[in-house]
Amino acid sequence: MRALALNCTLTASPGGSSTELLAQQVLDALAEHGVSGEMVRLVDLNIAPGVKADMGGSDQWPTVRDRILDADILVLATPTWMGQMSSVAQRALERLDAELSETDSEGRPLTFGKVAVAAVVGNEDGAHRISADLYQALNDVGFTIPAQAVTYWNGEAMHTVDYKDLDSTPDKVATATATLAANAAHLAGVLREAAYPAS
Amino acid sequence: MRALALNCTLTASPGGSSTELLAQQVLDALAEHGVSGEMVRLVDLNIAPGVKADMGGSDQWPTVRDRILDADILVLATPTWMGQMSSVAQRALERLDAELSETDSEGRPLTFGKVAVAAVVGNEDGAHRISADLYQALNDVGFTIPAQAVTYWNGEAMHTVDYKDLDSTPDKVATATATLAANAAHLAGVLREAAYPAS
Amino acid sequence: MRALALNCTLTASPGGSSTELLAQQVLDALAEHGVSGEMVRLVDLNIAPGVKADMGGSDQWPTVRDRILDADILVLATPTWMGQMSSVAQRALERLDAELSETDSEGRPLTFGKVAVAAVVGNEDGAHRISADLYQALNDVGFTIPAQAVTYWNGEAMHTVDYKDLDSTPDKVATATATLAANAAHLAGVLREAAYPAS
Amino acid sequence: MRALALNCTLTASPGGSSTELLAQQVLDALAEHGVSGEMVRLVDLNIAPGVKADMGGSDQWPTVRDRILDADILVLATPTWMGQMSSVAQRALERLDAELSETDSEGRPLTFGKVAVAAVVGNEDGAHRISADLYQALNDVGFTIPAQAVTYWNGEAMHTVDYKDLDSTPDKVATATATLAANAAHLAGVLREAAYPAS
Repeated sequence: MRALALNCTLTASPGGSSTELLAQQVLDALAEHGVSGEMVRLVDLNIAPGVKADMGGSDQWPTVRDRILDADILVLATPTWMGQMSSVAQRALERLDAELSETDSEGRPLTFGKVAVAAVVGNEDGAHRISADLYQALNDVGFTIPAQAVTYWNGEAMHTVDYKDLDSTPDKVATATATLAANAAHLAGVLREAAYPAS
Repeated sequence: MRALALNCTLTASPGGSSTELLAQQVLDALAEHGVSGEMVRLVDLNIAPGVKADMGGSDQWPTVRDRILDADILVLATPTWMGQMSSVAQRALERLDAELSETDSEGRPLTFGKVAVAAVVGNEDGAHRISADLYQALNDVGFTIPAQAVTYWNGEAMHTVDYKDLDSTPDKVATATATLAANAAHLAGVLREAAYPAS
Repeated sequence: MRALALNCTLTASPGGSSTELLAQQVLDALAEHGVSGEMVRLVDLNIAPGVKADMGGSDQWPTVRDRILDADILVLATPTWMGQMSSVAQRALERLDAELSETDSEGRPLTFGKVAVAAVVGNEDGAHRISADLYQALNDVGFTIPAQAVTYWNGEAMHTVDYKDLDSTPDKVATATATLAANAAHLAGVLREAAYPAS
Repeated sequence: MRALALNCTLTASPGGSSTELLAQQVLDALAEHGVSGEMVRLVDLNIAPGVKADMGGSDQWPTVRDRILDADILVLATPTWMGQMSSVAQRALERLDAELSETDSEGRPLTFGKVAVAAVVGNEDGAHRISADLYQALNDVGFTIPAQAVTYWNGEAMHTVDYKDLDSTPDKVATATATLAANAAHLAGVLREAAYPAS
């Protein structure tokens, strides 16, 4: 099985990214369940505004979309700004909106059977709400959400420490990441064997 | 398999309830997949404020909780007030928070393997956001969210027509309900056969 | 001028309440600007489900409503459960929904000219989103939101320390509370002198 | 007084935009209160990802920022995608995050005294939640939210009619726009005369 992590940081490569650190930890945890992983930092690409699968011109979403459709598990990883997901994550969701009108020969969205999980970091507050928004958008377009599908870290209110600058990964974050990975790998496996019915 | 619908209307029995109508339509659609269903109107019971599985005294949540734990599929049905879920739905989520500390002999929450879906009605605006909030809270405590797990109806902005007063069920709502039921029944079935791994 | 704080904790009196502590700090800060304050712990009262100003029977919302209408500043104080405001806070908002149909002799809601602010506590994550929800609901029914109208505290992700158990009030929280109070008192004062126009 | 409308459509000029139509209606309504208005369609500009006031290079946010700081009233106008504000609106909020560290000689954010309102359109569902998110983010960085500060239109659930294709402006939308404009103009005027106190 394969996982694709979308790193939705606002920081272009090679800048440091707390989101990348947490997303990589998710991929590492998935690897323990036999899932191979790769990551793309969306801000390095030209993801055109719009709600079609291909907006034409220099739009690079189509290559990202191909990798999503190749994957069994999508890891949506985002920083927290003003308590909300990044505009880069929001852009990715808008582009996934096109999947509502893309179906297989049996009328199912191409995303049916794929599993989506969330990874959220911020120096403060926002993870519950962002995971809510991610679940809704990704579920609407056809992804299944495994039990306890988010790992996250937020610092104490109004502080400015970044996840990537912590001395070590907090135990509770590591535990959440491990549970997420076990559940996502399990669910993607069973859905591969037993596809949703045709509509 | 069994489904339990929590009708989170603010209206006590025997008052009419749009939420009940949509929840019943979900149960009817699940029945077509061999799932037996029952419904409880929470506002008719005394659901105490708090975050324990049993708040003592005249608290009636423990009987609701038993029925949730007996079910394979939880249907959380809520009206929309001020763009948000009802306080009755919020109360139910708070009580489910206790499940985070209730685990089986292998360390898994008792909700693992259960599937949750949402049904949202309102004379206007709110369903996407409410389904987001429901998914997050229910997923946090261990439920799995099948693909396209919400059916909903909202009227045009700032209008006052109720779902129960429509001449007929809109086709798009009926289609969403059917998809939700097929996916929920399928996923609950496969998770019954293949439980999430112990942690 | 007068302020009323609604403490929306789930804990009945005389139980300890972090929400009460933060709400009292807001009232104390408002007092420095000549605003007298009082607080009500809603969970101690019978606030009936529904969306009318008076649901009849033993409903105690009408007395709360009178105190809201007597106040210049409303302080909505809530704990955080599952990343969301409490069901008690949600219930208060539902009851305020009735104000949309209560207007003065010039067609303005009785809430026009009143100022609303938020106080949010939780051992983790949720304050931004809860303040968003509170602003929207309170603004919809006619309250004005002063600049930087929230004070809040959340601990580090997935930790369990309560605000009331901190050794001292964090400086950043104290600063946010002071700014909120200065702005709320100022804005309530100017709106008292210069009412919104009749519609 | 001056108003600036940020049109956060995903559609580049000269494509049709429901968001532009509603934003223009807000500006027209403000003009009746003596407020001059202008609009910028952000997707036509290069608004760099990041959270600084100027991200350098070809970033065009600084010119937008100058116009925001020149205005008394900010109209944030956004379409609804997947129940959420557009990524273009989210990007604008991220850039406004920089205002938290920009203060005048008395320690106040440069946004203090400015008023913000919201205009939201979508062929379905999302306006309450989007106005919540806009209020929170704009209020956090220093804007004041006048009573009933949103005008919006959403069609019936799961339909696809656009606001710009309606035969006429619904009466309820026109009324909401008029109230918003009267309140925003009034509040911006009184805050101009009576600035928030220095901190």
